[in-house]
Amino acid sequence: MDHTDSVSTEPEFTGPELAEPYLRQVLGTAGLAVEYVRAENNTLFRIGEDGAEIPVVDFAGGYGSVLLGHNHPAIVDRARELLAAGTPVHAQFSRHPYANRLASELNRIIHRELRTEEPHFAIFANTGAEAVEAAVKHAELDRGIRLAALQEELAVHRERAREAVASRTAAVTPDVYARLGTDAPAPGDGFDALAAELTRRNAEQLAHPPLFLSLEGGFHGKLAASVQLTHNEAYRVPFKSLAAQARFVPRERPEALKEIYAQERRAVWDLTVSDGRVEITELEFPVFCGFLVEPIQGEGGIHVLSAEFAGEIQRFCEEIDCPVIIDEIQSGMGRTGTLLASSQIGLRGDYYTLAKTLGGGIAKTSVMLVREARYRKEFEIVHSSTFAKDSFSCHIALKVLELLEADGGSAYRRASERGEALRAVLDSVRADFPEVVKDVRGKGLMLGLEFHDHSGSSSTILREAATGGLFGYVLAGHLLHRHDIRTFPTASALSTLRFEPSLHLSDKEISQLDLGLRDICGILRDHAGERLMGAPVH
Amino acid sequence: MDHTDSVSTEPEFTGPELAEPYLRQVLGTAGLAVEYVRAENNTLFRIGEDGAEIPVVDFAGGYGSVLLGHNHPAIVDRARELLAAGTPVHAQFSRHPYANRLASELNRIIHRELRTEEPHFAIFANTGAEAVEAAVKHAELDRGIRLAALQEELAVHRERAREAVASRTAAVTPDVYARLGTDAPAPGDGFDALAAELTRRNAEQLAHPPLFLSLEGGFHGKLAASVQLTHNEAYRVPFKSLAAQARFVPRERPEALKEIYAQERRAVWDLTVSDGRVEITELEFPVFCGFLVEPIQGEGGIHVLSAEFAGEIQRFCEEIDCPVIIDEIQSGMGRTGTLLASSQIGLRGDYYTLAKTLGGGIAKTSVMLVREARYRKEFEIVHSSTFAKDSFSCHIALKVLELLEADGGSAYRRASERGEALRAVLDSVRADFPEVVKDVRGKGLMLGLEFHDHSGSSSTILREAATGGLFGYVLAGHLLHRHDIRTFPTASALSTLRFEPSLHLSDKEISQLDLGLRDICGILRDHAGERLMGAPVH
Repeated sequence: MDHTDSVSTEPEFTGPELAEPYLRQVLGTAGLAVEYVRAENNTLFRIGEDGAEIPVVDFAGGYGSVLLGHNHPAIVDRARELLAAGTPVHAQFSRHPYANRLASELNRIIHRELRTEEPHFAIFANTGAEAVEAAVKHAELDRGIRLAALQEELAVHRERAREAVASRTAAVTPDVYARLGTDAPAPGDGFDALAAELTRRNAEQLAHPPLFLSLEGGFHGKLAASVQLTHNEAYRVPFKSLAAQARFVPRERPEALKEIYAQERRAVWDLTVSDGRVEITELEFPVFCGFLVEPIQGEGGIHVLSAEFAGEIQRFCEEIDCPVIIDEIQSGMGRTGTLLASSQIGLRGDYYTLAKTLGGGIAKTSVMLVREARYRKEFEIVHSSTFAKDSFSCHIALKVLELLEADGGSAYRRASERGEALRAVLDSVRADFPEVVKDVRGKGLMLGLEFHDHSGSSSTILREAATGGLFGYVLAGHLLHRHDIRTFPTASALSTLRFEPSLHLSDKEISQLDLGLRDICGILRDHAGERLMGAPVH
Repeated sequence: MDHTDSVSTEPEFTGPELAEPYLRQVLGTAGLAVEYVRAENNTLFRIGEDGAEIPVVDFAGGYGSVLLGHNHPAIVDRARELLAAGTPVHAQFSRHPYANRLASELNRIIHRELRTEEPHFAIFANTGAEAVEAAVKHAELDRGIRLAALQEELAVHRERAREAVASRTAAVTPDVYARLGTDAPAPGDGFDALAAELTRRNAEQLAHPPLFLSLEGGFHGKLAASVQLTHNEAYRVPFKSLAAQARFVPRERPEALKEIYAQERRAVWDLTVSDGRVEITELEFPVFCGFLVEPIQGEGGIHVLSAEFAGEIQRFCEEIDCPVIIDEIQSGMGRTGTLLASSQIGLRGDYYTLAKTLGGGIAKTSVMLVREARYRKEFEIVHSSTFAKDSFSCHIALKVLELLEADGGSAYRRASERGEALRAVLDSVRADFPEVVKDVRGKGLMLGLEFHDHSGSSSTILREAATGGLFGYVLAGHLLHRHDIRTFPTASALSTLRFEPSLHLSDKEISQLDLGLRDICGILRDHAGERLMGAPVH
């Protein structure tokens, strides 16, 4: 295609740059500020100096959004059809049968993968981060309802005890005051004082803000609440005052779960009457609002959760009655060979979030699924979004599911098979450059290659890149300009390059990457930073 | 168009309803759970019992998203062109000249309307609520930077005072201790004790969470942080523990601003040295993070902010150095005759949010603009979104601006003119039914008609609708089934019907609404609830 015919080609923009010029400048120093004019399958095209299109193999894959490829013909056709037919995109507060069909289809697949028949209710949103916000809101609504029930229960028990004391069928024993660490009050106003003291203490507990649990290295979005569940301090800490907090749990350290529980648990005092005695007992107070888990951490450096640790999380959350919120925004939608990557490690969630490839690379859509046992229908009345649950996005998402499920699930199989072929090359590069490559991780078409720390390199260029936080970006710039390969470091682990191509990935493209990575590894091994070609593009 | 040819027509969905069945049920009780199969201009089409399309005049207008009409041919064509050309939707972290052109075009219009040349930097997001979250995050980043500078200043002054005391060029006077309400320490360790006390007191203030100001009746979205700026308690209170809080300012009561300031302001103690004396003074501490303002409240019941009150807000915020965040998500994009409704009342913001019609009824896009004086470029590094700033949405938004600006701004003029024609009819209905219609409000194509309270109606049906929170919805059901008119109450003021049609609104459609409203007013005047036709659709 001659780029001059492409509607995507921009006239040279000469006005002031007002859309993130600083970011463009930072990308420019790594040679990454190029312009793409067209995209198809596994390729993004940019324009060379001679005006011809240069194909770039895309291993960034829209940060996980184009498993089916850029501008998949069947999805583009569906989109064009919908537009031509005048699909009612903006029909809020009406029947949305397409949304129900989509929810139902998601359920069908999830039931197959999880071997369950429990319905999962769907709340649609527009982006991955919005789906996480919806999950957080739903979990807090649920917690609030449980909390109100607990308060009600405490009040009923208190009145029961009050009546028992008033009718002299039971008495408060000194042991109660001993446990509370207070003196017994003067006889007479005894019960009222006790009830007031318990109510005061309980109110303190009940006012405690919800606490989320999230894994170290976890990434759950960058909106005000979701970013507090995202581990990366650079993204999170400046906004700490804006939203409820998370405790970050180290990966693969089950013992940390119990430690955190011991530190963070809260209890309220309940009054019970038995055998003529009023006693106090502790009741757990639901402070833990949700445990956010990515089955494979994307931005954290492509870390695969082990089935063992997943099992520990699951048992722990059951024990403390904390919902498990499985964030499949990057790992899900077939990327690892199943709709839910978590289904492969036996992890069962109360909530799931899906986005990225759900929109087929064209629509913006996401969904938050809640299993029936945890679902609060009240949420449907208090939460909504102008853009969500629209006919265009739902129909595109239905087409995506159709493509994934077609031919007995050949897309899932292809994701696994292509992933293995890609992984074999990454492993071979690692084997040949053990002093350069630290690790290769991932599953299916969600792979990462971690470099050793090069902050001590004898090459000034490499040392500065490694210490200045641009290491992975500089390598990506070289791959782009020398090898026509697009990739990036993971956002929170800058020494790990990400490989999340579409399932169109060909053997030829894998060989191209092989060459590129070996070139880079040679440069790193030889401390030959001057050979890096990340020509700054300003 | 025969609906059987339409790709938008759904096969009857027979599976379990998993996408908000409870909401559908609630809508059903008001007769609103109909299915729309096609949309164009100012019309949504549903299928009648005979299988033929029934055109419904759309006064809901996608909650403000389709000022240019449903599926505007030029926008649909542009979308289809972009798709056919393989536009690179997913090209994160590259050059986005289309985003810069869009930001630049928005600036050009804003500069004209505000008569300024100050650049406004653009952060793109995907939905209105996301744009508000971005504004909230940016404001808090900015506050954090100012706070750090304040702490630095306090530390410098403290050390200067310490040196002056050590070198005996200045002494701490007893007055300092008097102001602090503490005893003077023993001579010798005097300064250290004072410094420690001030640091302790200041740390308490500095740890105070940010406070937002928002107007009573304000609506700013439903994500975890944005919903705390939204006044409606039903939406906000269940999620109170999730995010930073707002103080809600009554509309049109300038004196409330000073009251709230007096209650909420915070100060820190600074040490100064002059004339051989160490003194303490109070410095304002930036607790106010942002003042959210809709120039016309949409979900709050279509309330137009007066130029006088806008001026008071502006002066107040300048005085206390609190950024003004103008939420133009519903009022903006030409709906009232200008891109920014706020420009008509002389209100000048530090931030603007735009969404809805920015996406042309097809794309999902929003933008948060920050004027240069307040902009923090660091934000570009810590905030991002996979779906935002994409080529598809930016090109569609450029087309929207092109359509608004075409022919010397005839779209703006048409919005004003059609708005006046619609308003004339609403006013006339009010004049003829003063006992039924309480008020007509709004500007341009953002109008509302408020009914008197009917909770005392002698009609059981009307009384129950009014007390059960479904009043406006039941009226909407009648308008839909009897008059083929689509409208809704505003989300937080259920006795106000909203009218936000597209600028294609014809005189015939206005007459159709006139008839429908007079029918409803007759029913309400006659307390004849039994005449209401909100046939439940299950």
